[in-house]
Amino acid sequence: MEVRVAILGQGYVGTTLAVGLERIKAGEIPAWGVPFGFPKDFLREPKLTDIKIVHSIDVDEAKVGKTLYEVAQQYFPNLRIPETLKEVRVSRGIHLGSTRGLPLKARGLEEETSLQDAVERIVSEWEKAKVDVIVNVITTEKGPGIGNWEKLVEAIKKGGEWEGGKLPATYAYYYAAMLYAETVKPVAFANAIPITLARDEAAVNAAAQRNSIVLGDDGASGATPLTSDLLEHLAERNRYVKGVVQFNIGGNLDFLALLDPERNKAKETTKSSIVKDILGYDAPHFIKPTGYLEPLGDKKFVSMHIEYISFNGAVDEMIVNVRINDSPALAGLLVDVIRTAKIALEHGEKGTIYEINAFFMKNPGPAGAKSISRIVAYQLLIDWLLRHEALEKIPRYSVHTFIEDLARLRKLA
Amino acid sequence: MEVRVAILGQGYVGTTLAVGLERIKAGEIPAWGVPFGFPKDFLREPKLTDIKIVHSIDVDEAKVGKTLYEVAQQYFPNLRIPETLKEVRVSRGIHLGSTRGLPLKARGLEEETSLQDAVERIVSEWEKAKVDVIVNVITTEKGPGIGNWEKLVEAIKKGGEWEGGKLPATYAYYYAAMLYAETVKPVAFANAIPITLARDEAAVNAAAQRNSIVLGDDGASGATPLTSDLLEHLAERNRYVKGVVQFNIGGNLDFLALLDPERNKAKETTKSSIVKDILGYDAPHFIKPTGYLEPLGDKKFVSMHIEYISFNGAVDEMIVNVRINDSPALAGLLVDVIRTAKIALEHGEKGTIYEINAFFMKNPGPAGAKSISRIVAYQLLIDWLLRHEALEKIPRYSVHTFIEDLARLRKLA
Amino acid sequence: MEVRVAILGQGYVGTTLAVGLERIKAGEIPAWGVPFGFPKDFLREPKLTDIKIVHSIDVDEAKVGKTLYEVAQQYFPNLRIPETLKEVRVSRGIHLGSTRGLPLKARGLEEETSLQDAVERIVSEWEKAKVDVIVNVITTEKGPGIGNWEKLVEAIKKGGEWEGGKLPATYAYYYAAMLYAETVKPVAFANAIPITLARDEAAVNAAAQRNSIVLGDDGASGATPLTSDLLEHLAERNRYVKGVVQFNIGGNLDFLALLDPERNKAKETTKSSIVKDILGYDAPHFIKPTGYLEPLGDKKFVSMHIEYISFNGAVDEMIVNVRINDSPALAGLLVDVIRTAKIALEHGEKGTIYEINAFFMKNPGPAGAKSISRIVAYQLLIDWLLRHEALEKIPRYSVHTFIEDLARLRKLA
Amino acid sequence: MEVRVAILGQGYVGTTLAVGLERIKAGEIPAWGVPFGFPKDFLREPKLTDIKIVHSIDVDEAKVGKTLYEVAQQYFPNLRIPETLKEVRVSRGIHLGSTRGLPLKARGLEEETSLQDAVERIVSEWEKAKVDVIVNVITTEKGPGIGNWEKLVEAIKKGGEWEGGKLPATYAYYYAAMLYAETVKPVAFANAIPITLARDEAAVNAAAQRNSIVLGDDGASGATPLTSDLLEHLAERNRYVKGVVQFNIGGNLDFLALLDPERNKAKETTKSSIVKDILGYDAPHFIKPTGYLEPLGDKKFVSMHIEYISFNGAVDEMIVNVRINDSPALAGLLVDVIRTAKIALEHGEKGTIYEINAFFMKNPGPAGAKSISRIVAYQLLIDWLLRHEALEKIPRYSVHTFIEDLARLRKLA
Repeated sequence: MEVRVAILGQGYVGTTLAVGLERIKAGEIPAWGVPFGFPKDFLREPKLTDIKIVHSIDVDEAKVGKTLYEVAQQYFPNLRIPETLKEVRVSRGIHLGSTRGLPLKARGLEEETSLQDAVERIVSEWEKAKVDVIVNVITTEKGPGIGNWEKLVEAIKKGGEWEGGKLPATYAYYYAAMLYAETVKPVAFANAIPITLARDEAAVNAAAQRNSIVLGDDGASGATPLTSDLLEHLAERNRYVKGVVQFNIGGNLDFLALLDPERNKAKETTKSSIVKDILGYDAPHFIKPTGYLEPLGDKKFVSMHIEYISFNGAVDEMIVNVRINDSPALAGLLVDVIRTAKIALEHGEKGTIYEINAFFMKNPGPAGAKSISRIVAYQLLIDWLLRHEALEKIPRYSVHTFIEDLARLRKLA
Repeated sequence: MEVRVAILGQGYVGTTLAVGLERIKAGEIPAWGVPFGFPKDFLREPKLTDIKIVHSIDVDEAKVGKTLYEVAQQYFPNLRIPETLKEVRVSRGIHLGSTRGLPLKARGLEEETSLQDAVERIVSEWEKAKVDVIVNVITTEKGPGIGNWEKLVEAIKKGGEWEGGKLPATYAYYYAAMLYAETVKPVAFANAIPITLARDEAAVNAAAQRNSIVLGDDGASGATPLTSDLLEHLAERNRYVKGVVQFNIGGNLDFLALLDPERNKAKETTKSSIVKDILGYDAPHFIKPTGYLEPLGDKKFVSMHIEYISFNGAVDEMIVNVRINDSPALAGLLVDVIRTAKIALEHGEKGTIYEINAFFMKNPGPAGAKSISRIVAYQLLIDWLLRHEALEKIPRYSVHTFIEDLARLRKLA
Repeated sequence: MEVRVAILGQGYVGTTLAVGLERIKAGEIPAWGVPFGFPKDFLREPKLTDIKIVHSIDVDEAKVGKTLYEVAQQYFPNLRIPETLKEVRVSRGIHLGSTRGLPLKARGLEEETSLQDAVERIVSEWEKAKVDVIVNVITTEKGPGIGNWEKLVEAIKKGGEWEGGKLPATYAYYYAAMLYAETVKPVAFANAIPITLARDEAAVNAAAQRNSIVLGDDGASGATPLTSDLLEHLAERNRYVKGVVQFNIGGNLDFLALLDPERNKAKETTKSSIVKDILGYDAPHFIKPTGYLEPLGDKKFVSMHIEYISFNGAVDEMIVNVRINDSPALAGLLVDVIRTAKIALEHGEKGTIYEINAFFMKNPGPAGAKSISRIVAYQLLIDWLLRHEALEKIPRYSVHTFIEDLARLRKLA
Repeated sequence: MEVRVAILGQGYVGTTLAVGLERIKAGEIPAWGVPFGFPKDFLREPKLTDIKIVHSIDVDEAKVGKTLYEVAQQYFPNLRIPETLKEVRVSRGIHLGSTRGLPLKARGLEEETSLQDAVERIVSEWEKAKVDVIVNVITTEKGPGIGNWEKLVEAIKKGGEWEGGKLPATYAYYYAAMLYAETVKPVAFANAIPITLARDEAAVNAAAQRNSIVLGDDGASGATPLTSDLLEHLAERNRYVKGVVQFNIGGNLDFLALLDPERNKAKETTKSSIVKDILGYDAPHFIKPTGYLEPLGDKKFVSMHIEYISFNGAVDEMIVNVRINDSPALAGLLVDVIRTAKIALEHGEKGTIYEINAFFMKNPGPAGAKSISRIVAYQLLIDWLLRHEALEKIPRYSVHTFIEDLARLRKLA
């Protein structure tokens, strides 16, 4: 069961995804970091080897027109890049100012032609590539949702005018995806950046009406899922969290982009909501993407401080410091976002799917859905996969027991 | 539904339990640190106010004959101790050398009379106190299990001779508990120290035959449950753990006792088993109770280092440092061990109960049961409580959703 | 040799200074945290018992008119406050908007009368109190220096107009101090906040002309001195620092004030200069006062990350997490700033004194002086004290040896 | 001014030293990690390019007879090894059981011939190689000192019998070095392992009588110097250290060797003495080389916890976590141990030299000398180098100022 993937934004994440996937498929490295990928491939199908990256879009002049092989060399100068990446060439995408403030020369299709034309050109390329899943990993954008589909149609017509500013590029791509779904075949759009999409009713309805799927928002790859599980750990023991501090600093383009206060704000909101959702009360917290320091590169530094009250008034303290390679963390998850998206399409599901979003995304859609601890979300996902008969037996005790326990409970009912 | 509790070992944990509980009952402090105790009491019954400590045993000459009020003053010189603790006086217990190497003067009943007599005297005191639940928090002991009940009967007769050494005091107390169950009423024995008991078939059978319950082993209060949840976090993302380091150092009597290599070994085994159980492979690890430093007092210092491989071969690193007040952490859990034990007794359950042990104990019985991540264990416990109609609705989103999800699944089946 | 002290800003630092000092003088607590104060008082004179707080100024309506005893009760509700603090009452000071943005009701003398009058009223109060040393611990202010004394005189006359805005309150107080020096007696002004003063040529000249002393700027109490010593540690081994991250977060008024971007900027500059000064090259760094989280209170959380290259290209990593009680850290240092200031006055020194500033201040005056590692600065200070015959022999090996070594070197020359 | 170096123990440290040095000499990498080596070579002479490794000894069958080039390939399979390392071949050395318990096949010269002969053979090889400096980096050995030279002479004669056990290999090598000094030319012996040598009066006298030098003991490369500087930092602010915890864990042969309790004990003593020496009181501490975990490799993990009392009774807390590449840290220092040793020889110094030991060694000789903070030690070393006119001006502000200050002080005297 082949899955044909289009990437939006051939940056660090998109390129790590492409390189890592090809190396895994070639047997060069194990599939660590892919939730259901190793020590054996636990999904029945699609298998890891079924995933094929068939299309790529960017607006950076240093990438447009290059093959993924050439782009990968820019990111990994010392690595032997898989030859298979020579088969895909980066197409020019829609810019609409999405890279403003970043040190790169960008130009969008809409600067050559009308935005409507630009959209159609992309749809037609996707059609040729027979795309199943579109993965959005362009630079962090902000946006409160599409709100009203007609307004979006209008904005496209007017060349990207949107609420007195510019339409976020993501919404233009999503419009293209929906056009593709109407004219070619159902598609899954996975939004791995913070902009509101899977939590937007208009977007979810648009997908549902086209037998398509939108997943998101904001891939849960970094420190937030860890914070979430630590808070769940405390909540289960009913320890009272006095305060939560979480600093993040990194040296990749994503952190550089966060120097822009608006983008930073977009991230902050995402991260803060977990505290109340998980603890049940809004413990004071300072959870922010905080800074940029070039030598850290893609391996960010995260520092957390949690102080809490235990039994009999005792005050405990937890300090967590993490170095996380940001792009691989997300890219590894995206591999199974792609696969679960395909499974959902195959089963004719439509709209958005909370069970997938809850584990893979920081801000799981649909609108109004809350963050739950990742470990709990994982069990929901496992259950969803079992219901779709997509999962092999995983030989970890915890999962295994639990699955059987669920089965037993079903019988008891 | 009153629960009448006997404490074995009126040390830091036992005294924190008594003091904290009375302060909560008096409304002086909130029940933080009791898993189902706050912001409201989520167990239908027994309520927190239903718990009554009615008996206490120790062998330390500085405690025997004193009221719990006086003992509490030794531990908490600056705290206003609840007057209600004047009602219970510490009885002399069985020593059998259990405090060897510790800087205290201890004497056991068996030095005054025969061990058989000592046991009977304790049973008779428990009978007067109408004990429901016995909580074992004596100094860390080692022991591979009772193995054979007849052998235990014999050892009691022979004044505590046991495999060329001395019978662990815990086993003598357990014998007393079983005698109590035979002659008075079913009882629950909660073993919160590392010695093998709930994982011992002979012990579990003995309880089952007397309509009684044994819970254990080794209260999961400290760094191990946290390590367990962190490993589960990594396992769910399929990140390959290269190695795990976990150091522990504290300044309470428990850490002092661990300077004794045999006791240390007992703890180490408990802690190490989680790695393989949770990850599914035996990642190299160094997980030890490591040292004693007096000024740390009851607030131990834990340092963890976990290095792991993420997608595309990236190497990440996690460092966790925690200050945990050891005794309150355990005492808070014991409050709900006591209550769930009572619920189980009321429902006529017998033997041991994995759903309770898995969340509350480091080495959950019965024999052969494996460690699962605490967060998963918590869901099992929630489910067990729901099945016993013992739980109010908890207003945390994650729990709530999950419970409803379970309910839904049951209906689907 | 009595030292009579006036405090500017009766906040957390000023109050901790007053309370701690009186408790030490009363023998209630040891003088830990005072560099030369314990286990015995190593300064010949003034002794700790010679310090007398005789005057206090604030603009907070909740403090003005209260005794230090009453103010101390606000900060330390559970502490027995020394009765001696009833002898000093907080006078109203100069506001000039220095508390803008803070959640307190403030009013300055200059709102009741002219600024010139306000200044004179303060000078006259100091005269009555026979002040020797004035300690500036008002809320963080920003200012690039006085620059030109005439301009300051003019600003006072014009009611505080200053470069299109308001004169910083510190400069008005400094003007008062100089007026006091002219009309009463030489004085030492210790500036423990970030505003430029001891690094300002005009300010230093003004002091020198009046046989007075100005010390500063910005008390080196927190994470910066530690960072400084860690960098010195690496520099001495010639390890190449790839990058330095330092986050700070606290819950006191000082951190709340830093939410104001201008104040934050003032701090950041101070902190960043150390990197180049100590390493000899400007390693990339992100060193900022970062955030406010109320429950942390006065005990801030600091997290540092330093990555460096060792021999043969090896990459090492250092992570430092600290909880520091901010106000006591500074107050303890101020005790000996006060004493060394008095020693300098007694010896007829004037202007500013690098040897004192280099150890006690983040931004040591005079203008152009650079940060040196605190440990090196300490040796300079020791040497300065020896030259002034002010220091008893300290029984720490490192200090002792070094002092003797210096003596030997002098003889060798 | 050529320096001809013999290495004892061609392990990780010795090989990193050889490889790093040749890469630096070839201009392939900068001399980071060499205290006086970069950004320019601050020692007048010998220059880095003057150092020549001319002899190497080991007892591991996998190394004896191989060139340093081949040995280096074992340690650094992915590195381009400098061709110049083909010029030196590893000679068989003296074993005397020094590698007991380690997973390697070792054989010493003394198993082929008499110990006396073995010693002479080594001396004769050194003579051919015209050795100036001998660096001892064999596996950690324990030993309380030679005590009496005659006893050592006797032990050599008797084939290594020593106090009812075996003579430490280090002492046999030291005997050889002294024989070399008698018969060939003065030599410097740098002992970088924990065994007592430079702190042993007999050893120092033996060197002095032969116009030779012994430096040591135990290279100060790891966590101990950092702890030392952190304690000095606290001591200078007179903060009262309540307790110090320091854990170390690594995966190299050195940590594996420490699984042997005797070797572990040897290290522990070294590390613990610093607390009292620096603070002036013996704060409770737990400072140990603690464990072995293979995947950590040469990059050990260190975790420190320091709790201290600040002004007015406030309790602060410092947690330091470090990843240090063990062998490069030591090897980098050894480069300048070698150079300063040569400078001392050239100036006709003899015995041991505290100024060198104090900075470079954990347990600085001579006997009775105490640990001082490294930063203070550094200033002593700088001063020693200046007195020997061996140092160029270093453009770091702190050093520079201080040097000039010393000069000024000399003039003042």
